[in-house]
Amino acid sequence: MDLKERTAQNLVRIRAEKPLLHHLINFVVMNDTANVTLHIGALPVMAHAAEEVAEMVDAAGALILNMGTLTNEWIEAMTIAGQRANATQTPIVLDPVGAGATTLRTTTNKAFLHDLKIAIVRGNAGELSALTGLEGEVRGVESIASHDDPVVVAQQMARTYRTVAALTGKRDIVADGERVFGVDNGHSWLPSLTGTGCMATTVVAAFAAVESDPLVAAAGGLATYGLAAELAADKATGPASFKVAFFDQIYHLTPEQVFESVRIVAIDP
Amino acid sequence: MDLKERTAQNLVRIRAEKPLLHHLINFVVMNDTANVTLHIGALPVMAHAAEEVAEMVDAAGALILNMGTLTNEWIEAMTIAGQRANATQTPIVLDPVGAGATTLRTTTNKAFLHDLKIAIVRGNAGELSALTGLEGEVRGVESIASHDDPVVVAQQMARTYRTVAALTGKRDIVADGERVFGVDNGHSWLPSLTGTGCMATTVVAAFAAVESDPLVAAAGGLATYGLAAELAADKATGPASFKVAFFDQIYHLTPEQVFESVRIVAIDP
Amino acid sequence: MDLKERTAQNLVRIRAEKPLLHHLINFVVMNDTANVTLHIGALPVMAHAAEEVAEMVDAAGALILNMGTLTNEWIEAMTIAGQRANATQTPIVLDPVGAGATTLRTTTNKAFLHDLKIAIVRGNAGELSALTGLEGEVRGVESIASHDDPVVVAQQMARTYRTVAALTGKRDIVADGERVFGVDNGHSWLPSLTGTGCMATTVVAAFAAVESDPLVAAAGGLATYGLAAELAADKATGPASFKVAFFDQIYHLTPEQVFESVRIVAIDP
Repeated sequence: MDLKERTAQNLVRIRAEKPLLHHLINFVVMNDTANVTLHIGALPVMAHAAEEVAEMVDAAGALILNMGTLTNEWIEAMTIAGQRANATQTPIVLDPVGAGATTLRTTTNKAFLHDLKIAIVRGNAGELSALTGLEGEVRGVESIASHDDPVVVAQQMARTYRTVAALTGKRDIVADGERVFGVDNGHSWLPSLTGTGCMATTVVAAFAAVESDPLVAAAGGLATYGLAAELAADKATGPASFKVAFFDQIYHLTPEQVFESVRIVAIDP
Repeated sequence: MDLKERTAQNLVRIRAEKPLLHHLINFVVMNDTANVTLHIGALPVMAHAAEEVAEMVDAAGALILNMGTLTNEWIEAMTIAGQRANATQTPIVLDPVGAGATTLRTTTNKAFLHDLKIAIVRGNAGELSALTGLEGEVRGVESIASHDDPVVVAQQMARTYRTVAALTGKRDIVADGERVFGVDNGHSWLPSLTGTGCMATTVVAAFAAVESDPLVAAAGGLATYGLAAELAADKATGPASFKVAFFDQIYHLTPEQVFESVRIVAIDP
Repeated sequence: MDLKERTAQNLVRIRAEKPLLHHLINFVVMNDTANVTLHIGALPVMAHAAEEVAEMVDAAGALILNMGTLTNEWIEAMTIAGQRANATQTPIVLDPVGAGATTLRTTTNKAFLHDLKIAIVRGNAGELSALTGLEGEVRGVESIASHDDPVVVAQQMARTYRTVAALTGKRDIVADGERVFGVDNGHSWLPSLTGTGCMATTVVAAFAAVESDPLVAAAGGLATYGLAAELAADKATGPASFKVAFFDQIYHLTPEQVFESVRIVAIDP
């Protein structure tokens, strides 16, 4: 399997099929993730009423559960949406924002991971360490400390919850418990901006909507996202001008650029 | 009636009177619509507590009911706000985001259209088709399919609900059941950005706050909004740089530019 | 006490200590204030579930209570968070958005000011006039009219509620009932953008997280914020391009620039 070619093809498929990405997502990043969805070529919808989420899932190509501004009302709606997604085999991508920072966030994420079939979990090293019982510290939503080796964290996450773990950091690691890939695209501007983890999750979900292997979707989504950041970086003079250039670049990214420049490496687990 | 002159005069009035636009609007676009409100020359407020909406309506020049991230709590607040707006003859502009996509959205919009006096409904072809019983398909919040002729959709919408229909698309159509206008301002960057329909609704509401004829307000608002997009387009290299240039342009738009360049055409209904 | 030097040192401390700023803040500005938090050098978190706010406060260097899109659910969470902040001596910065515009906003802000120990209140002249019983008018969230002399308003606010008042306007006034300072940094682009008051509050909170004297934190935070606006202004061609340049500038601001260019003046009260 050539991951470069498959990722390039998946970008073509996203733009052709325009899958609906149903977001139950935190308030901070709603606008940014809706724009990133459009720019990568998919369609966004943000809908969180318990009364309508199941119906919206039926039209969706992927469901994103993002825990950034959680309340009980949202947990209820996420549960309904998640169950419907499982029933209709719609892939769920979970973003456990701030897991480890409070009991509510840690226990809710664990409950979703146990009770639902989650295709992909995209989080930082602190969040995934907290969810696997490895040492880690999360301050607010930031990873402050984690287990030394992100491959160990990702593998343990994948095995514990029978999911694909997509751990983002200086090098991104994706793992399904057996196979492990490193993704080396990305840029140092990303952490200076809020919501860049959440936006990565959205791009991963776009790939999951068109790609049956969630490990391939996760690696390809993260590499594509990181590549857009690289290509945008030299137009930026600070984090806000980077954001403008980055969003423009996601929109203009070609399958040829993806094929030539994504850097996905198999890692011996 | 010279619509160019009247629209230019209405822009002058907005900037002189600075009407308060009370938004009950979806979370995705709150920041953008607040900024667009300021840039066109009005004052924004976003307030949705059932306890305060009636008091806020009393200070407002127009009320915007935008259904993008609906819950029962918001429906209750919108109902109170809408009734007060009707009692005080404050124009209501309804944005039926995602009507047709779920039962909740379709039925709530229909209920508001029946129970309240709505001055203007601004939506896409799929949404307005769904609300009039014409064939249409809405995926998430995107119009995927609709009745062939937007003039028919807009006229049926206006007649069914005794309102002004403002249907946005490649050519915008505004209709009040008798008179019909086409608006040919706009730019192809707009659909690449989230919330451009919602922002159009906000600009229409600014015009409705100073103009007693809602058809004139709707046509003038859409033409002014589309003109700003045209003038901004050549400064853009992608959707995000377009957004920056577009917002700057709304702020700088002069009544002279409006008078010279809005393209509003009477259509034989 | 040299306020220039101390403010420059406080900027260094913010970037070294990266205090967590826990925001309970309105939906309109969540993304902007999260970004401003990162750019000034601190860490943002937005968390408003009653179940987790106390635990999040325990990790925070400052708590921001921003009243922009208030509901009873949020008032309950703010109360819990505020009580925990007082118990742990975490400084609270209150932003009374729209006080004076509705009864809910006026009474809720007064209740918080009475029941909690608020370190700093950052508001406009209309809001602080409304909270002190001086004449004032607030339309939505905009100060339309206020007592003639902002020094009188700020002093009365500080004395009535035993807090530090940070009143922003053409000249910012900070007062603790005894000492009064004027801050002359700032730029005329700021009022053309939504949320610039809220973002000022966030920067003030970053300073309050590292500085034990809240008057010094408030003056230094407002001066630093205003200086970034000045330095960004000549890169702007409108409010949206100003916003990009302003955010970039906050990120790049050096302690040397702060030391050289903040303008904080003692005023004889």
